[in-house]
Parts: sequence; structure tokens; C-alpha cells
Amino acid sequence: NMVDFNLSPTQQAIRSAARSFAATHLKTARSIYEAAAAKPDARWEDRFRSTKPIYEAAAQAGLIKAQIPQALGGTGGGLIDAAIVVEELYAVETSASLTILGAGLGLLPLIIAGTPDLHERFLKPFLDGQKAPLASLVFSEPAGSANYADVGGSGLGTVAVQEGEEFVISGEKIWATDSGGWDDRGADFSCVCCRVKDSGPDMRSQVAIIIVTRSDIEANEASAFTVLSHPQTVGHTAVNGPHIRYKNLRVPKSNMLAPPGKGADVIDLTFTASAALVGAMGIGVMRQVFEHALAWAKTEKRGGNEVMLKKQSVSDLLIKIKIRCEAARALTWKAACAFDMKPESAAAAELCYAAKILSSESAVESVMDGISLIGVSAYSRAHPLGDLLQDAMVLPIFDGGNVGVRRRQIESIFAMPGYDPWEATFGKASPPSALNGTH
Amino acid sequence: NMVDFNLSPTQQAIRSAARSFAATHLKTARSIYEAAAAKPDARWEDRFRSTKPIYEAAAQAGLIKAQIPQALGGTGGGLIDAAIVVEELYAVETSASLTILGAGLGLLPLIIAGTPDLHERFLKPFLDGQKAPLASLVFSEPAGSANYADVGGSGLGTVAVQEGEEFVISGEKIWATDSGGWDDRGADFSCVCCRVKDSGPDMRSQVAIIIVTRSDIEANEASAFTVLSHPQTVGHTAVNGPHIRYKNLRVPKSNMLAPPGKGADVIDLTFTASAALVGAMGIGVMRQVFEHALAWAKTEKRGGNEVMLKKQSVSDLLIKIKIRCEAARALTWKAACAFDMKPESAAAAELCYAAKILSSESAVESVMDGISLIGVSAYSRAHPLGDLLQDAMVLPIFDGGNVGVRRRQIESIFAMPGYDPWEATFGKASPPSALNGTH
Amino acid sequence: NMVDFNLSPTQQAIRSAARSFAATHLKTARSIYEAAAAKPDARWEDRFRSTKPIYEAAAQAGLIKAQIPQALGGTGGGLIDAAIVVEELYAVETSASLTILGAGLGLLPLIIAGTPDLHERFLKPFLDGQKAPLASLVFSEPAGSANYADVGGSGLGTVAVQEGEEFVISGEKIWATDSGGWDDRGADFSCVCCRVKDSGPDMRSQVAIIIVTRSDIEANEASAFTVLSHPQTVGHTAVNGPHIRYKNLRVPKSNMLAPPGKGADVIDLTFTASAALVGAMGIGVMRQVFEHALAWAKTEKRGGNEVMLKKQSVSDLLIKIKIRCEAARALTWKAACAFDMKPESAAAAELCYAAKILSSESAVESVMDGISLIGVSAYSRAHPLGDLLQDAMVLPIFDGGNVGVRRRQIESIFAMPGYDPWEATFGKASPPSALNGTH
Amino acid sequence: NMVDFNLSPTQQAIRSAARSFAATHLKTARSIYEAAAAKPDARWEDRFRSTKPIYEAAAQAGLIKAQIPQALGGTGGGLIDAAIVVEELYAVETSASLTILGAGLGLLPLIIAGTPDLHERFLKPFLDGQKAPLASLVFSEPAGSANYADVGGSGLGTVAVQEGEEFVISGEKIWATDSGGWDDRGADFSCVCCRVKDSGPDMRSQVAIIIVTRSDIEANEASAFTVLSHPQTVGHTAVNGPHIRYKNLRVPKSNMLAPPGKGADVIDLTFTASAALVGAMGIGVMRQVFEHALAWAKTEKRGGNEVMLKKQSVSDLLIKIKIRCEAARALTWKAACAFDMKPESAAAAELCYAAKILSSESAVESVMDGISLIGVSAYSRAHPLGDLLQDAMVLPIFDGGNVGVRRRQIESIFAMPGYDPWEATFGKASPPSALNGTH
Ligand SMILES: Cc1cc2nc3c(=O)[nH]c(=O)nc-3n(C[C@H](O)[C@H](O)[C@H](O)COP(=O)(O)OP(=O)(O)OC[C@H]3O[C@@H](n4cnc5c(N)ncnc54)[C@H](O)[C@@H]3O)c2cc1C
Ligand SMILES: Cc1cc2nc3c(=O)[nH]c(=O)nc-3n(C[C@H](O)[C@H](O)[C@H](O)COP(=O)(O)OP(=O)(O)OC[C@H]3O[C@@H](n4cnc5c(N)ncnc54)[C@H](O)[C@@H]3O)c2cc1C
Ligand SMILES: Cc1cc2nc3c(=O)[nH]c(=O)nc-3n(C[C@H](O)[C@H](O)[C@H](O)COP(=O)(O)OP(=O)(O)OC[C@H]3O[C@@H](n4cnc5c(N)ncnc54)[C@H](O)[C@@H]3O)c2cc1C
Ligand SMILES: Cc1cc2nc3c(=O)[nH]c(=O)nc-3n(C[C@H](O)[C@H](O)[C@H](O)COP(=O)(O)OP(=O)(O)OC[C@H]3O[C@@H](n4cnc5c(N)ncnc54)[C@H](O)[C@@H]3O)c2cc1C
Ligand SMILES: [Mg+2]
Ligand SMILES: [Mg+2]
Repeated sequence: NMVDFNLSPTQQAIRSAARSFAATHLKTARSIYEAAAAKPDARWEDRFRSTKPIYEAAAQAGLIKAQIPQALGGTGGGLIDAAIVVEELYAVETSASLTILGAGLGLLPLIIAGTPDLHERFLKPFLDGQKAPLASLVFSEPAGSANYADVGGSGLGTVAVQEGEEFVISGEKIWATDSGGWDDRGADFSCVCCRVKDSGPDMRSQVAIIIVTRSDIEANEASAFTVLSHPQTVGHTAVNGPHIRYKNLRVPKSNMLAPPGKGADVIDLTFTASAALVGAMGIGVMRQVFEHALAWAKTEKRGGNEVMLKKQSVSDLLIKIKIRCEAARALTWKAACAFDMKPESAAAAELCYAAKILSSESAVESVMDGISLIGVSAYSRAHPLGDLLQDAMVLPIFDGGNVGVRRRQIESIFAMPGYDPWEATFGKASPPSALNGTH
Repeated sequence: NMVDFNLSPTQQAIRSAARSFAATHLKTARSIYEAAAAKPDARWEDRFRSTKPIYEAAAQAGLIKAQIPQALGGTGGGLIDAAIVVEELYAVETSASLTILGAGLGLLPLIIAGTPDLHERFLKPFLDGQKAPLASLVFSEPAGSANYADVGGSGLGTVAVQEGEEFVISGEKIWATDSGGWDDRGADFSCVCCRVKDSGPDMRSQVAIIIVTRSDIEANEASAFTVLSHPQTVGHTAVNGPHIRYKNLRVPKSNMLAPPGKGADVIDLTFTASAALVGAMGIGVMRQVFEHALAWAKTEKRGGNEVMLKKQSVSDLLIKIKIRCEAARALTWKAACAFDMKPESAAAAELCYAAKILSSESAVESVMDGISLIGVSAYSRAHPLGDLLQDAMVLPIFDGGNVGVRRRQIESIFAMPGYDPWEATFGKASPPSALNGTH
Repeated sequence: NMVDFNLSPTQQAIRSAARSFAATHLKTARSIYEAAAAKPDARWEDRFRSTKPIYEAAAQAGLIKAQIPQALGGTGGGLIDAAIVVEELYAVETSASLTILGAGLGLLPLIIAGTPDLHERFLKPFLDGQKAPLASLVFSEPAGSANYADVGGSGLGTVAVQEGEEFVISGEKIWATDSGGWDDRGADFSCVCCRVKDSGPDMRSQVAIIIVTRSDIEANEASAFTVLSHPQTVGHTAVNGPHIRYKNLRVPKSNMLAPPGKGADVIDLTFTASAALVGAMGIGVMRQVFEHALAWAKTEKRGGNEVMLKKQSVSDLLIKIKIRCEAARALTWKAACAFDMKPESAAAAELCYAAKILSSESAVESVMDGISLIGVSAYSRAHPLGDLLQDAMVLPIFDGGNVGVRRRQIESIFAMPGYDPWEATFGKASPPSALNGTH
Repeated sequence: NMVDFNLSPTQQAIRSAARSFAATHLKTARSIYEAAAAKPDARWEDRFRSTKPIYEAAAQAGLIKAQIPQALGGTGGGLIDAAIVVEELYAVETSASLTILGAGLGLLPLIIAGTPDLHERFLKPFLDGQKAPLASLVFSEPAGSANYADVGGSGLGTVAVQEGEEFVISGEKIWATDSGGWDDRGADFSCVCCRVKDSGPDMRSQVAIIIVTRSDIEANEASAFTVLSHPQTVGHTAVNGPHIRYKNLRVPKSNMLAPPGKGADVIDLTFTASAALVGAMGIGVMRQVFEHALAWAKTEKRGGNEVMLKKQSVSDLLIKIKIRCEAARALTWKAACAFDMKPESAAAAELCYAAKILSSESAVESVMDGISLIGVSAYSRAHPLGDLLQDAMVLPIFDGGNVGVRRRQIESIFAMPGYDPWEATFGKASPPSALNGTH
């Protein structure tokens, strides 16, 4: 052990593979889904559907398996390895990438909380590089998710009732990546976050996660699962995150993944890991902005007598972007490493949220700064930064909005008795007075 | 004279009329041009074309005439009155509004620099509320406009050569609002900024403005004026700002509006006035954001037990937006009043640029803050803030980008010998020592 | 009435007088109190005491009388006039200026809430330009003032009990400008904010303001009023704001200025007016920074081959400072004018708080930016910006800290039913639909 | 090799030792030098002088030796180890710490560029823990240092002329930490940056570094070395950085450390390393702020009914401070590691400058935010944050101001042909197309 920022050979290889996949399959993704959208009578969701071949290529290239740990038959390493991959994907493209990563997010509660039996029943299709099943974490609801566990709040609106050997699920969800499946009949595998009424004294303790597969849906009446609409989004336009409804959907009791009392903890841990990965997304976005803006500044004169990089106002913005990107990467990596060491520690969680907040907000500011320095040309959709802004602007508001749940989580950690701010860096503190004693 | 922020009865009436026009014609504008864009085989420019009835309504409501001073037969008052109107338009809609304001911008060089004869020849169609002609200021070029007058730079690429009784104009332009006309055959009236080669010792002194009307274009071969493309833009999607080409376009010598030696000054003065109006656009945008976000915060609980306005993090963002809007309005109004008093003073110009920079950047930040506080719901295109961000983000980069020309203009004013920073506020300074003498 | 930013001749005269006073008496103030502090055995409060001649000159120059309205025998105009004066003082010096302004603040509750009889009894010494009495608003307490009226809070700790024809006051106060007097035996006139226990159902309704004069103190035992300490402050080092204690201080019943039920409103209104004046202080500070930094940038080359103003990074910072100053002034003036029109309206109050927040935070940022651009030389105490930072940094945290009471006040205004965000600008809104009807 | 953020056991030990030293000797430092300053007839430099015992303790505790590499007889490890130490010192105190670190800076050119012979001659006293000699890097000049190597600039004003076996040095210097020595007769060892006129074609190539010891000074007439003044500084008040003058100071030829052609490179490399350490200083400052403000927020109610940590506005500021601190530390460590791997690479240098800029500016913002959240109490000098602001504000402007030299250095790196922005992270890039080939 010692402070070190060099990738191991394995990490280098993981990165190369991700980069190679991105160069081959993601570089052209936007043109594919924009072409799909431009077809006469195209519907919004045709964008998403047009990316199916990319998703299949990702599965074949091992990018789904890489999101499952080796102990469970996958090829995945730590969160730090995942962060390296996510950066490479988002440095090239966003929507098709999120479809791939959404599947990993959908499996995460199963990985964290699943029994060997559940792993056996549900992971197999995802370990097989040939098939390309979709998985989804189905948590968010139309009326808001930031306060789902609050005392005095309304709690999750999706409710499960046990009837004999089954759970009966009803309620509406929205935004869950991949949750509609390619044909609006559901993802192959979903972790549905819901509330088992009266199972605990407060909203938080009633939260459970129940597995719903596509076969479960098929075993019900058609009306048990409906895609109500595909919300058109400002960016990430080829992602699937429909408004859906469960209506008396019945699944076997054995699909319970995290029972009341445990569900909320699993959800929180899942979103803690994903926070660091949103950090990595922001880094990818900033890489794109910086590379594009630097190339522009090195060649454009805009009618003047020297290239724009020589203008201090321009280079100052480039420097801002670069420093933000470097800081976000260094912090995200540290958060991922801390999580890999102690996934359930508050100290690691704090860093993961910090990385999410810093990197996501930095990414938006950096795209705006890139646009500012390039000037009016960036307003043309032929230039990439306009679209990138629309993609980037979700980073602060999805995966737990930064104003709400993300900052509130850090606030709670600060409030914990015995909170040691530097534990993730130096280990649990021993007071300096003790040290003095050794003199 | 005394410091006063109350609108005069006339100003109140102007505002009411603009508000009424906006409520009647602009509120539905986006749905009109989005419907036009959704038609099968729709081209980009169909958005713009679908707004023609709105433009005609604007002419009938006197909004074109209001951009021409009373002394020249219009109904226009000062720049402060214009700012009040612009705010009301942009508080409701952006694209159709810019089409209206672009016409006023197109007339401004004529208003400033025209001889009585030129006024007589060219203003008439715009004074008649029944017709709805388009005017355009055709200045910007594909290779950049920030340094058009720079020593050592490449200068304007659009060049005019005198041949007998005519000027022959060649070159490419881009972005000029309304410059293509409804049918790509040009605006009814254009001020084309160009360079008369060798007419002066440096790039700046060679700049001229020549009037080109639709009839002038018709009198030439078709190839003399071509719309090369309609750049698709990130926002302001229903605005007309095509990439155009003049190729040996001949116009009568008497169309010279501002000859070499005078052209650059007229361009600068035109863009000084427009800077204050971009300030007003930003105010309109911030009004929209604030009203929308406040209404949201007063009603939404997002699963918690109190409305979001009670959350300090949310209200702090609302307060930021509100203060920015108030500051931008106060400064914009001051700039407009200073311009109305002394349009050609550097002191007034500085304030106009300051208002443009402050308000445009504040507008973008405010939309982003509005999105942050509303959270993930704002990522749906059903919510207005995503589209508004795309519209707002042009404010810092058009009408002279803030990083380039706008800040550079203030820099030059600072560098002037005898510069008095508070002249626009208190009049030219007399040194305090003089005051002491009165004791 | 019409939007106008020109000073009236009276306002010009007021400004000239303030400027002249500042040039004569304030320019040298810092050197006076630093010299006092440098004397062997100097105590902290000697700085303040050394400014007594300046305060007397201010009284003679009419600056105290100018803080009392004409209707009550003074020469004061509106809050806008006060803002003009405050800017001129703070553009030259801070500490001695605050001593002058603190006296005005101390009189404000009397001006607002006093009966003719109280005016008669207490204003006279301040109207006479020969004497130079001190007045003080004694509100803040060691345990905090931001939540003094909160439900569930601890309320003001200074308590008054009626005993026969007297009030008996006990409790500790801190920070009140001028409250110690030149000799630690109290200001000539103080408005002491306190709580009459059980006089109302909640903390807010129990708040009262009772007048305490120096003669009242003299009429008590010495122990009834004690200066416990003079807190050494980071900046504003020559201001008097001691930690004081009232212990069974008896004053006649007729000294009650604002009884329970009314006291809190008077305090709030007083601090609303002062908020706009803190805005003006920030403007003065920014003027100093800008003038100093601009002069530096126009002359210094720092070993390079051109003056620093030519470096875009330097001029960009100058531009930032200038724009902030202009925006703060425009908004502060608007707030003051709104207050002058409707002092008790929430609309005016919102603007006053906005001006305070914007200008105070802008001032601190601007001093920091000035230091950044000047670089290491600004770290020498021979340069003015280091001291100015220390003075400026109080603006956001005194007169109601911006994080606490100031933003919370705006939050409450937003929450009012029927809140109209643009009322201070355009008057109470009539809905646009109504306007349509007039067509 | 793999990405890892855990300290090695050695690093843990280094940290413990630094922490222990800080707890024992630095915690009381400010009270010591403030007491010295409070003595009657105290001069400015008495603050510095009063810290001599602390410096001696540092030497005994091995903190000087720790700044010399093991290969040269010291105990020093990499820049990352130094960064860990610096953070611990600045987390407790600033002035006495800088005195210690300034000595290390003074030795750095010798370490980098010294021949074995020079090492032998000059390092010995610093390796012996009993003596406590001072070393100083004497670079900065009154007229500015940012452009010392600029084409067309005035170059270093301190000039060396070779006369026989000696160099004769004349010129003025300022700010060099420790350069005056405890008694104004010079540091024990100084690296004097100067210009050997006409030794090269431009200013940069003429720069040399010549060693000047206290004995060299003693061997000259008294007038050859004069402390002209001790500039009083806003913060870091116990640091020694006098305005000094060399006047025909003669030193043996063999004192040439870096001859013309090499001097500027050595200076740049020295300041590259120190940039990362300024990053570490900023971290230490932010630690202080965070710990202080968090403790405050967990206990203070300010008259309200809950602790301030529960107020979102307060916790949002705490979160900002914490995230900045974590980001700055992660980036600084990365920069230090990159430097340790390839000290002369532009990629490492870029990160060191980035760390300096980010951390120094974050530190100032964080102190200001700490003050804002604590409110008016922080204006008392009894609270630590006011003094800390004054100390922190030097970080962006010393060691190369961020507006000038620091950003300009990054700008130049961006402009290098073949610049690869991610080299420090992933190694020199191979194009993704090559990777594709491996598929
Ligand atoms: C592209 C995309 C992909 C997504 N993928 C998934 C997915 O795979 N699975 C899934 O379940 N969801 C997904 N989501 C949804 C998303 O992760 C969450 O719904 C979203 O982050 C929650 O939004 P919010 O925090 O803004 O909460 P909301 O509850 O909607 O809150 C709205 C806002 O109110 C404010 N607020 C709320 N509470 C507080 C408070 N206590 N204090 C202060 N402010 C508060 C905050 O400003 C907050 O942003 C996706 C969304 C998008 C757009
Ligand atoms: C919706 C819309 C409407 C428009 N309407 C019109 C119109 O009616 N008529 C018209 O003529 N044009 C119009 N334009 C074009 C627009 O006003 C200008 O072209 C644009 O503002 C100029 O861009 P720029 O300042 O970014 O200049 P560019 O020359 O394109 O410069 C690009 C960038 O380079 C940098 N830069 C350039 N020079 C310097 C420098 N010296 N120092 C530092 N940085 C520098 C700046 O970051 C600048 O933003 C419109 C554009 C849009 C999008
Ligand atoms: C130079 C100077 C002159 C002064 N002159 C006077 C004077 O003449 N008369 C006088 O009475 N006082 C005077 N004061 C004191 C000053 O006006 C107030 O005491 C001070 O502004 C109140 O401090 P605060 O708002 O920070 O409140 P505190 O109650 O001290 O609060 C501290 C901090 O806690 C946080 N906080 C508190 N409550 C909340 C909340 N509900 N929500 C979120 N955050 C919260 C805020 O960050 C706040 O800044 C002076 C002070 C100085 C330094
Ligand atoms: C406590 C302390 C300790 C110090 N220790 C040492 C030491 O040990 N040894 C030593 O030699 N020095 C020391 N110094 C001095 C310090 O390191 C440098 O002198 C200082 O950083 C150089 O200042 P500057 O970059 O602001 O340069 P200056 O040349 O003074 O420039 C001033 C400002 O002008 C602007 N500027 C200059 N050039 C440009 C440009 N090309 N483009 C844009 N803007 C520009 C920048 O805003 C810059 O900040 C110390 C200083 C202090 C206060
Ligand atoms: Mg779009
Ligand atoms: Mg001080």
C-alpha cells in the first residue's frame, strides 16, 4: 500500500478495451439514433430502439459481465475499475452508454443483497456474453424520490401486498433506465423498490426490493404492466426511462430481494456506488469539452492575427475546464477506492457523494465555459457542445439531485456522532495528544 | 431630474401593449413552430416560416413602427422604452420575439446614419402597420466577427468594389436574423457590412455599410444572392439566420449608407444599443425561470412533509435567481437611460456592454439554477426550463460574444486617456480638491 | 415620473458635501487611528476614541442632522439621498464613517416610532450642529440575533420588567455601534431592544424598544451599565461595539418607544432601511478597489513589455469588479427609491435585502479580485487592499448575516400569499388577460 | 502499481511525526509571536524572531533533514511525502510553518542542480539536526517576477558580473522567506537568482543561480548586503521576507549553482515542486476551517430551536468547504505522485500548477464561506477565522500569482506541440484506432 495513481496492468487493459469499444461502437451512436428520429412517423422511443445493436455489441464485448463481480461469475473488479470504464464511454457518447450502465445499476441490488439462490436464478443470462438482456433499477416515482424515507413524508407510492405465496405490486414509476425494455414489455430483470404497508413503524423501514422479470410480467394479464408514456428528455435522448404502471402485478414470494427493514439500506448502498460512477460520467464529458475546445483554440483565429489560445481570456477558460476535470477525476478515483475498501462506511459514502456533486456540477459548468469560449459557432447543432450541454445537464439532477438527496446525505453523515472528517484519508483518527505521549 | 424608477404613464402604456401582444400572440408561438417542425418532411426553416402570422400581427400591433423614432415617423421612444418592451416579449417567448427585434436591429444603422433621402427611400414600408417587411443587419461572417477591425487581422471578408454607378458585393455572411427572408430571397431591407478594399489605411477604416433590398436582389441574377444553408441551432429554433452568399451583387451607388471611415462607428453604435436590449432579453428569461420555479416550490412536496420553498437550499436558489434578475434590470435600465442621454459617449457604451454581459450570463446561470432546484422533472421536455436553457445560452455568445468582443470593448474604454469610471452616474468628475476650495 | 438615473440638483449638492467632508476628514482617518493604536500602552478602544474630532466635524458638517428627516427638524431626504452619502463616505474610509452612520441607525427607531413628545424630548441635541452626541441601536446579543423572534427559540435575552413608573432592564448586548460612548458610560441616546416577559403569546410579540440615555445611566448605580469588553475586530478597527451589560437599569416608563406588539416591527423596518445603506457601503468599497486596481493596471508592467491592463486576465478581473459595482449601485438605488415610496411594503423590503446581499457579497469578491490581479504586492500592508478586505468582510455578516436573517427574510416574503415578484418595478400586477380585454 | 490512496506505513509515520510536532510546537506559535508583537517598542520583525525556538525544535525533530533526499544524506522521500507533512503543519499554524518550509525551498535548487562538490560544501549544516541554519530561495524582485523571462521584458534586475575568480552581485530582492536571517545579516544559505548580462541572447538564457552564504556576506563590506525594510504583511505575520539589497557583493566563482542557460530551468522546476506544496498548504487551511465551522454548527443554536447544522444554508456551506478540501487533496496528491515519477515532464508540471491554483483559491473561498456561516462572531479576533483569512489570502498570490505566472505556465504547456492532456493519468496516448486493430 502506498499512495499511487498509476493504473495496474489489468486496469490498463480494462481501459483499452473500453476505449476500443467506444471508438468502434459509440462514436457513431448519435448519428444512428438521430437518423432513427428523423424517419417519418418516428416515435421518441425509436431512438432508444435503434441502439439495440450497440447494446448487443456491448454484451459481446463483455461490458455487461464486467459489471458483475468475479466471485459471482462476472469479470468485474472494484468500483475504481468501473469508474475507469465509465469515463471512457462518456468521453465518446452518453445515451447508448447509459443504457449499458443502467443494466449494471439494475443488477447491483441483486449483487449486493442476493442470496446464492437468487444469484443462481437471476444472474445467469447476464453472464452469458451472447444474450443481451436488460436490467433495471426501478426506484423513482413521479411525485419525487428525494424524501422517500422521510419521517412524516408520503413514502414510496408503489406498494406490495403479500397474498399467499405471491406479492401483488401496484404503483407508478418513472425514469428507470431500461425499465421498459426494447418493446415496452419490461426489462428482462428489474429490481422494483416498493413499500410493504405496515411492515414497519415508519416509511423507511417498510421499503423493500422485489425482483420482477419479463417472464413474471408475461405471466400476468397485460394490464398488470403498462408503459404510460416515454417522457421526451432534454438530452440523453436515446435512453429508455418510461413512465410505467404496475397494477396488481403478481410475482412469487421468492422474488423478494431485500425485505422491509433491509430494502432502504440496499437502495442507499446502490446509489452510493452509482454516485461515484456519475462522477466518472462527468469526467468523460469534461474530456470531450476540453479536447474539442483546445483543438478549436489551437487553430482558430476568428479574424484576428493569432490563434485563440494566445488570448488569455480563452486560455483561462480552458484552464478552468482542465483543472475541474483533473480534480473531479482525482476525487472520483479516491471515492471509488475508499468504497472498494469499505463499501458500507459512511466515510466512503461521503466521498462518493462528494465526487458526484463535484463532477456533475463541474461538467455542466465546463460545457458552458467551452461554449463561451468558442462563441457563436457553438450555437450551431453541427458543433457538438450544444448537444453535450443537454446531455451533461442531467448529471446534477439524476441519480439523486444534488440540491436534495445528495447534499442531504452528506449533511446526515456530518451529523453522525463520532464523525471523523478525514477517516477516508488517514483512517480513524487517534487524537494528537496520544501521539505526543509517544515522545 | 431626479433618481426615479417609476415608469411614466407612456412607459406603462407601452409595457401594457407589449404584454398584451405577448399574451395573445407569443404564448402559443412555440407550439406553432414545434407543430410545423413535427410535420412529415419538415425542413428546419419551416419553424421560422410558421411564425409569419405572428410577425404580421406584431407589425399590426405597431411593434415594428415602435422601433423607429418619432422624428422619423415611427412611434419609438428611447432605448429605455425598447428595453421595457423587449423584457415583456422575452418573458413569454424567444424565437418569434427575436424575429421582431432583428428587424429593428436591421433598421438601426439606417436610423443612425441615414440621410433624409435614405430615410425617405427606405423607411416607408416599415412605418405602414399593414405591410410586414423584414429588415436585417448583415454583419457576421463564418470565420468570425470579434476581430473584424483588428490591426493585423483579416478584416471583413465581404467586399464591395465600386464599378461606375454601382457597388459590386461579394462574400459570405451567417447568423444575420431575418436575412434570408421568408422565402430565402432576402429580407426586404438589409444593411450589409462590408469592406471597400484599399479605401483606408487599415481594416477598420475600410468598413462600410451598404443597403441591399429585396428589389436589389431581384434586379440581379439569381446567383448573386444564395442561401447556402440554414444552420440548425441549439435554441431560438424558429429564428432565421442563414449562411448566405453574395456573388457580384450589384446595387446602386446611392445605397451606400455609411461609407468607409464611418461604417465601423455605425456598426459599433448599433451593437451598443443592442447590447442593452440583450440585457432586457436576459431579464425576460429570468422572469420566466423565477415565476416557474417559485410556483413549483410553493406547491411541490416531493414526498416530504412540507413544500419545497421551506427547504433553505431551494429558497436560496430562488433568491439567487431573483436577485440576479433585479440587478440585471436595474443595470440595464440605467444603461439604456445613459444611452438615451448621450448615445455616443463611452460612458454610456460601457454600461450597455456591462448590462449585456451581466444579464446574459445571469440568465444562463439562473436557468441552470432553476433546473437544479426543480430537479429531475426539469429534464422532461414537457417542462419549460430545458428549452429555455437552450434559448438562453445564446445570450452570452451572440450580439458579440462576452469573452471576446464585449469584454474587449470595455477594456478599450478603460484604457482611454481621461477615462472617468463614474461619469455615467455622476457626470464628469471634478476633483474633490476643487470642492474643498468651496469651504 | 419616469425612469431616470440623474441626480437632482439637491442630490448633487448632498453628494458634493459628503465628498468634500470625506476628502477633508476621512482621507486621513486611518492614519489617525493607526497612530493611536501604535502608542505604547494603547488599548483597542483608543482607535475609536481618536476619531472623536472626526465625528465632531461630521456633526458640524451636518452629517448627523442629515440623518433626521426635515419634518422632524433635520435636513434628511429620502433613503436614496442617504445611499448617495454613504457611498461617498465608504469610498474613502470605513471605521469613522460607520461611527457616523451608527448614530443615524440609533435614531431611526425614534424617527419611525416616536411620538411628537418623544421626538421633542430626544431629538433636540442631534439637531444642533454644535454638539456631537452619539446614538446607538442596541439590538444584538452574544448568543445570536438571527432568530430573535422565532417560535420555539430563546428570544431576546435582554429583559425589561415594569416596576411602578419604571422599567428595569437586565441583559447583555454586543456589537452595537457607538453603544459604549466615548468613555464607556454609554451613548447619549440608545434604543435598547428587549423583551417584556409574558407581554405576548410568543417571542416576537414580547419585543419592545426602550430608550436609554446617558443621563438615565448616570441616574443609576454604576453597576447598572458596564462595558464588559471591547471585542477586537478583524476590520473596522476604530468602531465602538462593546460587549455591554445592563443590570437592573431603571428608566422612566415614558422611555418606552415601541411597546410589546410593536417593537419587532420597528426593529425590522429599521434594519430594512439599513440594508439598503449597507448596499451603499459595498458600492463605496468597490469604488475604492476599482480605482486602485485600474490605476495599478495602467502603470505597472511587472517586468513585461506592456502595461497590465493589456493582459486580458487582468482586465477581465477589472471588468468583473466594475460590473459588480455598477449592478450593486443600480439595484441599491432602486431599493432605496422603492423604500421611499412605500417604506412598509414587502416589495420594497425585498429589494432592500436584495441590495444588501448583492452589494455586500460583491464587495468582498471584488476586493479579493483586486488583490488577485495586483498579486503579491497587495499582501503588503502598505497597499490598501489588505486592510480593505478586512473592512469589507463584515458587510455580508453584520446588519443581519446574509446566510441567516437576510435570506430568510426574502424567503418569508416569497411565501406570502399574493406575493407579486415585480410589484416594486411595475406596481401590483393586473393579469394580462384583463389587458387583452381592452383590445 | 495500481490506483491506491492508502498511505504506506512510512507515510503514516511521517504524518504522525509531523502531526505530533504541530501539536507540540505549532499550536502555541501564534500566541508566542502575538505576544512578541504586543511588547512595547516591538518591531515588526520581532514576530519572526520570537519563532526561533520553534524553528530549532523543527530542526531537532528532523523537519529540515526531511526536506533533503535520502540520496544526499537527508531523510526526505517524494514530493507526496512532503505534501503530507505540509498539510499537517498548515492544519495547525501558518507563519512558523512557512519559515520551516522556506528553508526547504531555499535548498531545492541545490538539491536539483548541485554537483556532488556543491552538495558536500553546502548541505552538511542542514543534515545535522542539532544546528538550525536557515536557507532561502532569493528570486522575487520589487518590480515583479511574473515576466522575468519574457521576450521584450526587463528581465531580472539583480545582476551578476564575473570579475576574476568572483561574481559581483548587485540588485534588490523582496519577499524571499528566511532571506534576512534572524538578525538581518542574511540566511545561512541562499540561492540568489540573478542575470549574467550578455551571457545569452535573451532574458531567459541569462538567468543564473548563485549561492550566497552568511559567511560570504560576512566576508564583504557591511554595505554589500542590506535589509532595507521588513514589509508588514496582511497575514503570515511572523514570516521573514525582507526587502534586501545586494551592492557589489562578491562571492567565489565556485558558488555558481546554475549557470546562464540552466538557471531558469532550475528556478522553474523548483517552483513546480513548490506549487504542489502550496496545494498542501491550502488543504491544511481548509481542514482548519472545516473542523472549526463544523464544531460550531453542531453546537450553536443562535437563539433558534435547533443546532445550525440542521439549517440547510449552513450545511450547504460546510459541504462546499469539505468537497473543496477533498478535491484539492486528491489533486495535490496526484500532482505530487506525477512529479515523483517524472519531475521534468510537462504533464507533471501541469498538474502541480493545477493543484496550486485549485487549492489556493479553494482555501480562500472556504475561509470566506466559513466566516459567512458563522456570521458576525467570526469578525471578532478572538475567533480564528479572521486571522486565517489573512493568512490564506497569500496562497493565490505568492509562489507565482495565479492570475499571472501560474495560469500562463499551463497555457504554455497547452500550446506545446504534441501536448497530450491525459498523459499524467494514462501515460502517453496511443490512438484508439491502433487499439481497434487488435480486435
Ligand atoms: C436519464 C435518467 C436516468 C435515470 N435512471 C434512473 C434509474 O435507472 N432508476 C431510477 O430509479 N431512477 C432513475 N432516474 C431518476 C433519478 O435518478 C431520480 O429520480 C432523481 O435523481 C431524483 O430526483 P431528485 O433528487 O431531483 O428528487 P425529487 O424528489 O424529484 O426532488 C426534486 C427537487 O426538490 C428538491 N428537494 C427535494 N427534497 C429536498 C430536501 N429534502 N431538501 C432540499 N431540497 C429538496 C431538490 O432540489 C430536488 O432536486 C433517472 C433519471 C434520468 C433523467
Ligand atoms: C440567434 C442569433 C442571432 C444573430 N443575429 C445576428 C444579426 O442579426 N446580425 C448579425 O450580423 N449577426 C447576428 N448573429 C451573430 C452574432 O451576433 C455574432 O456573430 C457573434 O456574437 C459573434 O460571435 P463572437 O463574438 O463569438 O465572435 P467570433 O469571432 O466567432 O469569436 C469566437 C470566440 O473567440 C473568442 N475571441 C475572439 N476574439 C477574441 C479576442 N480578441 N480576445 C479574446 N477572445 C476572443 C471569444 O471567445 C469569441 O466568443 C446572431 C447569432 C445568433 C446565434
Ligand atoms: C462592525 C459591526 C457593527 C455592528 N453594529 C450593530 C449595531 O449598531 N447595532 C446592533 O444591534 N448590532 C450591530 N452589529 C451586530 C450585527 O448587526 C448583528 O449582530 C449580526 O448581523 C447578526 O449576526 P448574524 O445574522 O450572523 O446572526 P447570528 O444569530 O449570530 O447567527 C450566526 C449565523 O448562523 C447562521 N444562522 C442563524 N440562524 C439561521 C437560520 N435561521 N437559518 C440559516 N442560518 C442561520 C447564519 O449563518 C448566521 O450568520 C454590528 C456588528 C459589527 C461587526
Ligand atoms: C509570504 C510570502 C513568501 C514568499 N516567499 C518567497 C521566497 O521564498 N522566495 C521568493 O523568491 N519569493 C517569495 N515570495 C514572493 C512570491 O513568490 C512572488 O514574488 C510572487 O508570487 C510573484 O508575484 P506575482 O506572480 O503576483 O508577480 P508580479 O510580477 O508581481 O505580478 C503581479 C500581478 O500582475 C499580473 N500579471 C503579471 N504578469 C502577467 C501576465 N503575463 N499575464 C497576466 N497577468 C500578469 C498578475 O495578476 C500578477 O499577480 C513570497 C511572497 C510572500 C508574500
Ligand atoms: Mg434539443
Ligand atoms: Mg490585521
